[in-house]
Amino acid sequence: MLPFSSTKPSTSFFHFPPFLPSFFHSVSLPLLLNPPKSSHLRFLPLPLRIRSIDAAQPYDYESQLLSQHLKSQSLKIAIIGFGNFAQFLAKTLSRQGHTLLAYSRTNHGGAAKELGVTFYTNPHDLCESHPEVLILCTSILSSEKVLKSFPFQRLKRSTLFVDVLSVKEFAKNILLKYLPLEFDILCTHPMFGPESGKNSWVGLPFVYDKVRIGNEEERINRCDKFLDIFAKEGCRMVEMSCAEHDRYAAGSQFVTHTMGRVLEKFGLESSPINTKGYETLLDLVENTAGDSFELYYGLFMYNQNAMEQLERLDMAFEAIKKELFGKLHQVYRRQLFGTVEGSEERPKIQKLLHNGAPLEPSKDTMEQERS
Amino acid sequence: MLPFSSTKPSTSFFHFPPFLPSFFHSVSLPLLLNPPKSSHLRFLPLPLRIRSIDAAQPYDYESQLLSQHLKSQSLKIAIIGFGNFAQFLAKTLSRQGHTLLAYSRTNHGGAAKELGVTFYTNPHDLCESHPEVLILCTSILSSEKVLKSFPFQRLKRSTLFVDVLSVKEFAKNILLKYLPLEFDILCTHPMFGPESGKNSWVGLPFVYDKVRIGNEEERINRCDKFLDIFAKEGCRMVEMSCAEHDRYAAGSQFVTHTMGRVLEKFGLESSPINTKGYETLLDLVENTAGDSFELYYGLFMYNQNAMEQLERLDMAFEAIKKELFGKLHQVYRRQLFGTVEGSEERPKIQKLLHNGAPLEPSKDTMEQERS
Repeated sequence: MLPFSSTKPSTSFFHFPPFLPSFFHSVSLPLLLNPPKSSHLRFLPLPLRIRSIDAAQPYDYESQLLSQHLKSQSLKIAIIGFGNFAQFLAKTLSRQGHTLLAYSRTNHGGAAKELGVTFYTNPHDLCESHPEVLILCTSILSSEKVLKSFPFQRLKRSTLFVDVLSVKEFAKNILLKYLPLEFDILCTHPMFGPESGKNSWVGLPFVYDKVRIGNEEERINRCDKFLDIFAKEGCRMVEMSCAEHDRYAAGSQFVTHTMGRVLEKFGLESSPINTKGYETLLDLVENTAGDSFELYYGLFMYNQNAMEQLERLDMAFEAIKKELFGKLHQVYRRQLFGTVEGSEERPKIQKLLHNGAPLEPSKDTMEQERS
Repeated sequence: MLPFSSTKPSTSFFHFPPFLPSFFHSVSLPLLLNPPKSSHLRFLPLPLRIRSIDAAQPYDYESQLLSQHLKSQSLKIAIIGFGNFAQFLAKTLSRQGHTLLAYSRTNHGGAAKELGVTFYTNPHDLCESHPEVLILCTSILSSEKVLKSFPFQRLKRSTLFVDVLSVKEFAKNILLKYLPLEFDILCTHPMFGPESGKNSWVGLPFVYDKVRIGNEEERINRCDKFLDIFAKEGCRMVEMSCAEHDRYAAGSQFVTHTMGRVLEKFGLESSPINTKGYETLLDLVENTAGDSFELYYGLFMYNQNAMEQLERLDMAFEAIKKELFGKLHQVYRRQLFGTVEGSEERPKIQKLLHNGAPLEPSKDTMEQERS
């Protein structure tokens, strides 16, 4: 029942209570009180704003309009591979009201059911359901194998194929190689996951490259509708070529994962005297530790820029060690040949030095910042 | 003038307006309206709460009490070395109302004047002013040299000597070695600096070790008063032995600085597709880049645990590289001897491999999280 007096049918004309923000005044009350499960209400385009309705009208015009609108925005999406990341994506797709199908070799029927996803154990059955969009959600390493044996011929000739792999040139190449020519191809990289996108996707980068989208309006709209899924969630939409993505990602995402893995292997632990900087490192390990080695290896192996970045990181680490040891050497030489200063550090220096080098006095000014 | 009617002298008895919180009702109005520049008001101990004063009393009893209290809490503190960190400390010490003197080899007279610090170019003059507390604020590298030639004999025999070096066993050892036996010794490490403590010290760790504090009440109080400077600012006060500090700091602070320096040398730059993890790395570089190499070298050289941590970091990095290359090798062997899969990555793999190893198929399950 309505919390305030109204004996008219739900579409009747009446005043909204003052505590509702003005935005709601253009939406029918029944919808406000019983909003649909999906959150589409907030994305109602302006032309749908209904400002007044004839009190006598017996037909629920508004609800019809809204459901038509929601239907026009929803897509029939099939997900191939239904691991962690796929399930993470499905949660949002499902909330947005899309029709979801999934197939994977392992039976993830239970997880799928919870998310309102129809699960198929046979890819032929999935394809015969004629989804409008297919998302390839397998690991980088298995993607090519999956594509090689997938029954594309059972899909409609107009299908949008999307991948979400973390490397893009490789993904683009195998999609162009294995997909039927009639298919649209959208390469994407949602640069977040179950950990970093746990609470919200607002501001998180979503990279995409419209590799092959047909000229027909329907195909263009379908691609835009798909991208809109992420835009609606507040992602930072970044359109960039697959090659450009890989260059940036090797210098950032791969390096981040490498640092996270090195520090995890190092065995970083919280201490009673964590500095602010140290806490950023602990966060980093937590952020990357959840990801599989397969993912990390994929970032390395299937991005042609990764090796160069690994080498650069290696060189940077070596350079820092050289600076430390070089300085150590100077100080020791000065102790040997300059003034001999008493300190309990000398045995350690002796242990660490292996060869001789010319004496260079180091500046140690006492005005320097406390160190 | 008072904003509400009162013809009585400032100490008269009257009601406080209702908008003032009850805390203020025990403090005189003139002080509320013209609070002293230091923030000591909020640290008035309970015995000083004056609940009512004879209206006829002509003597400004409250103000006298407060100024006596402030005076009793303030210390005469000399700072040796007046670089970045010393100036950063002086800002807060000065705000708290302590009397500050400073000496450094470089003339920092200008900076000192701005902070209300009396600057000495001659350490003998500074010592003859008889400060109660001396803070050694030089770099780790120059600290021993400074101590060796400092005119301690001009100070009072009862003086508290404090250091703020980032390594503590070394500091403790040289202080015990060079300071007169009558001096008190407090080893401290404020684990923050001009960057991380820019806005507030709340929650930042302040480590201390009361290495040698005399039994007299006056000496005990002086040490507590000094520690209170940091407690008042909200620091997390951590009492721990110098040796324990060094063990923790090598595993945290030194490792943090090493990572920051490696990434700075690597040339980490913001990209259009920064992930959350990558942004923590950019923060890290920003946090450590401001510190001098002298500081970093000091953390390495004067903490006997640092070398071990550097070696562990080195091993962790090598282990990650080995995992990557080992996996690479497996995959390549599989391509050579198993099915030959078409991918543009093969030439790269070839380039990277140097020796042969037994074939081990890698599991690539398609159910794995997208990678």
